[in-house]
Amino acid sequence: RYGYFGRVTPEVVRLMFCNVSGCLTEGRIFLSVSGEEMVSINTRDTVGIRMLQKEEVEVVLLMSSVDPVSQKLVDQLSERTGCKVLQVGEEPLNDLKAMVEQRKLEWKDVAYMGNDKADVNCLNLAGLSAVPGNAPTVAINAAKYTCHAAGGMGSVREFAEHILLQREKAKSKMEQDRIDCSNK
Amino acid sequence: RYGYFGRVTPEVVRLMFCNVSGCLTEGRIFLSVSGEEMVSINTRDTVGIRMLQKEEVEVVLLMSSVDPVSQKLVDQLSERTGCKVLQVGEEPLNDLKAMVEQRKLEWKDVAYMGNDKADVNCLNLAGLSAVPGNAPTVAINAAKYTCHAAGGMGSVREFAEHILLQREKAKSKMEQDRIDCSNK
Amino acid sequence: RYGYFGRVTPEVVRLMFCNVSGCLTEGRIFLSVSGEEMVSINTRDTVGIRMLQKEEVEVVLLMSSVDPVSQKLVDQLSERTGCKVLQVGEEPLNDLKAMVEQRKLEWKDVAYMGNDKADVNCLNLAGLSAVPGNAPTVAINAAKYTCHAAGGMGSVREFAEHILLQREKAKSKMEQDRIDCSNK
Amino acid sequence: RYGYFGRVTPEVVRLMFCNVSGCLTEGRIFLSVSGEEMVSINTRDTVGIRMLQKEEVEVVLLMSSVDPVSQKLVDQLSERTGCKVLQVGEEPLNDLKAMVEQRKLEWKDVAYMGNDKADVNCLNLAGLSAVPGNAPTVAINAAKYTCHAAGGMGSVREFAEHILLQREKAKSKMEQDRIDCSNK
Repeated sequence: RYGYFGRVTPEVVRLMFCNVSGCLTEGRIFLSVSGEEMVSINTRDTVGIRMLQKEEVEVVLLMSSVDPVSQKLVDQLSERTGCKVLQVGEEPLNDLKAMVEQRKLEWKDVAYMGNDKADVNCLNLAGLSAVPGNAPTVAINAAKYTCHAAGGMGSVREFAEHILLQREKAKSKMEQDRIDCSNK
Repeated sequence: RYGYFGRVTPEVVRLMFCNVSGCLTEGRIFLSVSGEEMVSINTRDTVGIRMLQKEEVEVVLLMSSVDPVSQKLVDQLSERTGCKVLQVGEEPLNDLKAMVEQRKLEWKDVAYMGNDKADVNCLNLAGLSAVPGNAPTVAINAAKYTCHAAGGMGSVREFAEHILLQREKAKSKMEQDRIDCSNK
Repeated sequence: RYGYFGRVTPEVVRLMFCNVSGCLTEGRIFLSVSGEEMVSINTRDTVGIRMLQKEEVEVVLLMSSVDPVSQKLVDQLSERTGCKVLQVGEEPLNDLKAMVEQRKLEWKDVAYMGNDKADVNCLNLAGLSAVPGNAPTVAINAAKYTCHAAGGMGSVREFAEHILLQREKAKSKMEQDRIDCSNK
Repeated sequence: RYGYFGRVTPEVVRLMFCNVSGCLTEGRIFLSVSGEEMVSINTRDTVGIRMLQKEEVEVVLLMSSVDPVSQKLVDQLSERTGCKVLQVGEEPLNDLKAMVEQRKLEWKDVAYMGNDKADVNCLNLAGLSAVPGNAPTVAINAAKYTCHAAGGMGSVREFAEHILLQREKAKSKMEQDRIDCSNK
């Protein structure tokens, strides 16, 4: 029942893409009279990202080129989270394909967190995918998991725990398969 | 049953007015010790505005002259949303009439989003109108649609989807009428 | 049944005291690395204050000297709301007594909005008093009205509408008494 | 039934440790384009801290070295709350042990407020411990008390009231024991 290839490639996420706007942040941009721009991130989410990094999941943050943010903010986000920050266009899939192939991964090894229409193709394609609980219906329908937490309120952390739980499950299943095989 | 004029002018919104304070923002103004002022907008709402602009609905943002905001903030909002920003007085209707006429539109072709007493006349007059879910009762009673989302939390996006859905319905009704006519 | 003095002094509020921290704001202070401090106020609440001012209710904002805020922030609040801003100590009653007497008012002509232990005496004494919905129990128990809205989210506006409604009621009761008298 | 030692050391908290991120703040950090960082604290929580200080409970604020914050922000927090601010590592217990011993206290005399995995050992060890209502499950399971309020929304105040209530209870129990002894 368990083929050779099924056993050697369990559903273990090695790469996670995560939208900054609406997932890591609440989606809000603060605009000030003096021309300042501000976003807020939650330490609970950055703890979640570190949990993944410790388990050797690479986390890449995505920013949409439609809502441009200054390079300085990108640098700050990158430093706080230890993640690479990638600018993506209207269809993020086009920008991410190369990165997935370059790492010799398939999309089933990828986790994707998005929060709107533009993310639908990636949410469908990724092995694990999630949206914050307050995402629009179009995104919720495409995601494999809907977080209870809203964007910027711990949804990235919640998805991180979900990913690590799936990983545990896949590992214990592999182990069980090995035992089943030996007992045949 | 369907007159000639009824068919050629379906209820299709071509112009939307949207209050900034309390609709696009949460209504909050951040005041700082150094004299800085700040407001926050949600990328989900700016995505909603872009959805309307793609379908050739002109979106005009309204700011009340009672709560003055600096020109720099107006410029930032305008750039982020691609919308004209208009200063209106205590009765926005007085400021908007000319704009509607200039575009050779009637008020039934206009969508209006407001969130307080001052918006009541416009909410009553516009073909489609909405308030955020947390608006005062006086505004809710005047609006044709009450969003589930609160101001600054996606209510503009929700109204944008509502407008586009009504538009689809109007178009498919027109098409149906045409078929009904041919089959008579 | 209706004495002479009862009729000439109906329960009509002429002066309102309102705590800034936790009533007009959410109670949050934003602290920045560069030493900046920020608070946020809601335009819905400033609209509420203007509703009272139009009906000739004087609104005075209270700031606690325990949580000092810079003079510049006080000036901004004063300008935005058109209210005098008063610094009060641990027992606001001590600071407000003189002001009430100076205007030849009694405490039954005063409305008070507070949100914590320090406000208990004033909440008890004022003719009308309110706390935001998220106030601590000790303050809720002392207030005559508990707002549905939380601090910084429209609770001042809600109390303003409550005050104006009571005023309408008092006026129509006076009118009724006059008619009852004439018909005797 | 009541031993000598039981009576002389009632469960009265004399020292409280409180995480800044996620307990005193919402856990959010605001990042700005110009490199500014900002956090927000609630006056309700600072009132709670002062309630403890008046009852001679020493309150020490903890900041994680994993999420570094500038010294200037630490100074501001310290000044606003009148608390010492301590930098702690991945296991806060290691940093706090010395402080507890130095004051000749046992961990049962200590109250601890945390909000994540890193706090689990301290939450288990402290005589009284709490997490904000929106803490991750791993922290909720280790805490003796789960606040109704979320982080940055009055949870520190709620825990302060809980501590003072337990203290009252312990004192009145001691008094009762003394009476019971005399009546034997």
